[in-house]
Amino acid sequence: MSVWVMRIGHRPQRDKRVTTHVLLAARALGASGAFVDTRDEVLEENVRSVSERFGGGFSVKTGVRWEDVAKSFEGRVVHLTMYGQRLEEGLSKISEGEDLLIVVGAEKVPFEVYERADLNISVGNQPHSEIAALAIFMDRLTAGSALYSDRGGKMTVIPEERGKRVEERDP
Amino acid sequence: MSVWVMRIGHRPQRDKRVTTHVLLAARALGASGAFVDTRDEVLEENVRSVSERFGGGFSVKTGVRWEDVAKSFEGRVVHLTMYGQRLEEGLSKISEGEDLLIVVGAEKVPFEVYERADLNISVGNQPHSEIAALAIFMDRLTAGSALYSDRGGKMTVIPEERGKRVEERDP
Repeated sequence: MSVWVMRIGHRPQRDKRVTTHVLLAARALGASGAFVDTRDEVLEENVRSVSERFGGGFSVKTGVRWEDVAKSFEGRVVHLTMYGQRLEEGLSKISEGEDLLIVVGAEKVPFEVYERADLNISVGNQPHSEIAALAIFMDRLTAGSALYSDRGGKMTVIPEERGKRVEERDP
Repeated sequence: MSVWVMRIGHRPQRDKRVTTHVLLAARALGASGAFVDTRDEVLEENVRSVSERFGGGFSVKTGVRWEDVAKSFEGRVVHLTMYGQRLEEGLSKISEGEDLLIVVGAEKVPFEVYERADLNISVGNQPHSEIAALAIFMDRLTAGSALYSDRGGKMTVIPEERGKRVEERDP
């Protein structure tokens, strides 16, 4: 299974921190890469810099239309929305090993996304956060398997009860 | 069990959207309320407005020091950090029914927080997002029970495979 995230409605100035959180959460939780609909070189650079230090391959491409990404994607398109079907129900429709493109909107999501998505899935029916929704969806999807996986990075954080422990490896 | 969130390092201008996500995710996932260390009336108003429409009691208090909140809190203080012990290990140390104060930092967290916390817990050992970390922690803690709970709000979203369905009730 490979999972990709498509972030739509990104406005570089207003959303820079929120979209960075979306992409870093996607990476940490095991996604292969992310697409963002508005060109944003600073965002690309920030996320790449994390991958360079902490390892793993995570591709970032900005300035791509969701319609184009969805059209050429060979797998299922999942749209996360507070209006969608229940999480357990949606997850039960996804087969093991299936490739997924997860569409994550900002404030206003065009109705075409609801129509194009193979599955509209909610992570709770309350207004909250697309970052939180993506995180829970991916944690459930992967049964937490990505959380402590070895990324072979130059820097690796070693879990500790108190304090900070970071191992550095030669590249 | 009641769960409270303490957001530290909040800078109203820079963090307004990220802290709003923290608080709305906390609310959606079943927390009783949140504290924020910097006074921010706009944030308070935004979160209260969601509660007024979508129901439930969720208290928000800004401009309170984490040291003071932690001192008077009768329960366990959990600090979420990428450096902390593994999630499953941390969760196994929490007893059912125990009240929790979950401390969620912004970029730099003072070392005193690591020392004061009863548990420093990581949600993966990769840099990502405090919103994502809080969401997964709470989803695991509550076994997803808050996601579709009835809040008795004026507005209730009914899960749907496609489109948006909202029921409005008389107050």
